[in-house]
Amino acid sequence: MTGTRAPSGVPFVKGHGTENDFVLLPDPDGTLEVTAGQVRAICDRHAGLGADGIIRVAPGPSGSDAAFVMDYRNADGSFAQMCGNGARVFARFLIDEGWAAPGRLLFSTRGGLRTADVPRTGDVTIGMGPATVGNPSSARIGDLEIVGVAVDVGNPHLACLTDVDMAGIDLSVPPSYSRADFPEGVNIEIIASIGPDQIRMRVHERGVGETRSCGTGTVAAVAAYLQASNRSTGTVEVAVPGGAVCVTITDEGSTLTGPAVVVASGIIDGAFWERHR
Amino acid sequence: MTGTRAPSGVPFVKGHGTENDFVLLPDPDGTLEVTAGQVRAICDRHAGLGADGIIRVAPGPSGSDAAFVMDYRNADGSFAQMCGNGARVFARFLIDEGWAAPGRLLFSTRGGLRTADVPRTGDVTIGMGPATVGNPSSARIGDLEIVGVAVDVGNPHLACLTDVDMAGIDLSVPPSYSRADFPEGVNIEIIASIGPDQIRMRVHERGVGETRSCGTGTVAAVAAYLQASNRSTGTVEVAVPGGAVCVTITDEGSTLTGPAVVVASGIIDGAFWERHR
Repeated sequence: MTGTRAPSGVPFVKGHGTENDFVLLPDPDGTLEVTAGQVRAICDRHAGLGADGIIRVAPGPSGSDAAFVMDYRNADGSFAQMCGNGARVFARFLIDEGWAAPGRLLFSTRGGLRTADVPRTGDVTIGMGPATVGNPSSARIGDLEIVGVAVDVGNPHLACLTDVDMAGIDLSVPPSYSRADFPEGVNIEIIASIGPDQIRMRVHERGVGETRSCGTGTVAAVAAYLQASNRSTGTVEVAVPGGAVCVTITDEGSTLTGPAVVVASGIIDGAFWERHR
Repeated sequence: MTGTRAPSGVPFVKGHGTENDFVLLPDPDGTLEVTAGQVRAICDRHAGLGADGIIRVAPGPSGSDAAFVMDYRNADGSFAQMCGNGARVFARFLIDEGWAAPGRLLFSTRGGLRTADVPRTGDVTIGMGPATVGNPSSARIGDLEIVGVAVDVGNPHLACLTDVDMAGIDLSVPPSYSRADFPEGVNIEIIASIGPDQIRMRVHERGVGETRSCGTGTVAAVAAYLQASNRSTGTVEVAVPGGAVCVTITDEGSTLTGPAVVVASGIIDGAFWERHR
């Protein structure tokens, strides 16, 4: 508000999926340019709107199989391949705002084409692609050594099923892990069975820290959980700090089903937007 | 977005003053009821919009000296008397949205009547009332004992001028202080002189932790700084982690001058609002 307000601002929607939160920037013409500085300014939790990331929502290019483009950026301005929790909010937006009819949508991400199944109201299901279980490895959290298994969900995970009291684990400092097994870093899931095909999970995301939820992390956790009972397919409920989702793994791939909540919509101040260009 | 969107939402503006951030709820009819649950939901930094507090903006009651009411709520839903950084954003909103003409405004808070001087653009000056310097006291931060002075700015402060390297002080754990001197708790300012009538400040707010800025804290810091040079009046620039403000203390009272930035405006989703009623 310092200075005259710019004549026009930039429309936004803020929402979250299991408390993984996003600012969506609707871009019906596919012409909105967003700088890394603008991403950082918008995601700043005190000087901006605050979010884990930005999703530019655009129509798919003509000739593309994808009707829509999910252009996801991390809060630090960097580009990301895909975000399962963000994809639910993205898909819910498309239906609620009338960009698409309820049903199955095909959209493109930097991680490739994805599907979303979106009813008129309620939970959204995202096709997450294959989850490939690899070799055993382990993480050290303080004095605690936890054994797990590598899972590739497009990004690297170390999913650790444990009997240790999860609430007592301190994830405020990054766990240590084998750099030989995970040369590009790794997301680490701590998992406990809490019932038949029900698990609880906490996650430490590489480069971020502990988060309220991680979409690919829940898929990795379920793949590891199923393997521990000598299964490769199944449907498992996953409780995370930010809520609950459901993961199904089949021979064809995996899906993630969960809530998408819109909080607010409006206009990012034009002067704010220009200042951070 | 889960469920059908409620027919109408609640208008909001998000802004900040030196990174102390607020969601303003314009209430031109003075009829908007806001529950503690709604305050907490809106201020939640992952599941809501995210803010340090909520300011309902309403016209003053007829017959009142105050043209406007600043109804401030802390992020936990509790009522607060006054917030100097919030008052700047509140006053800037009134001018930018045409509720008042540039110049001097009189508004009421739970801490009493206050003035704002608001130019058409740029920094806003808030009348902060008297700052009363009291007795010496001290705080302990880890192994470090820092001596300061009590200052009453409507709320209690312990303002500590120090030569210690401020960047090295850990305010992630609450400092300890004399419960006899501050039976209702205290906001603690660590202050260093960085030039002629220029200081740097970090603040630990009671019940909150370290913050990016604290309006009454900057006034307390300047009162303590002036006293240390045997003055009771003066104008001092204060650098805080979230930016810079200017405090003037006269025989009549104190003023706080600083920026007010609007980030975005829009509508809080009606279903979200109803869910947290």
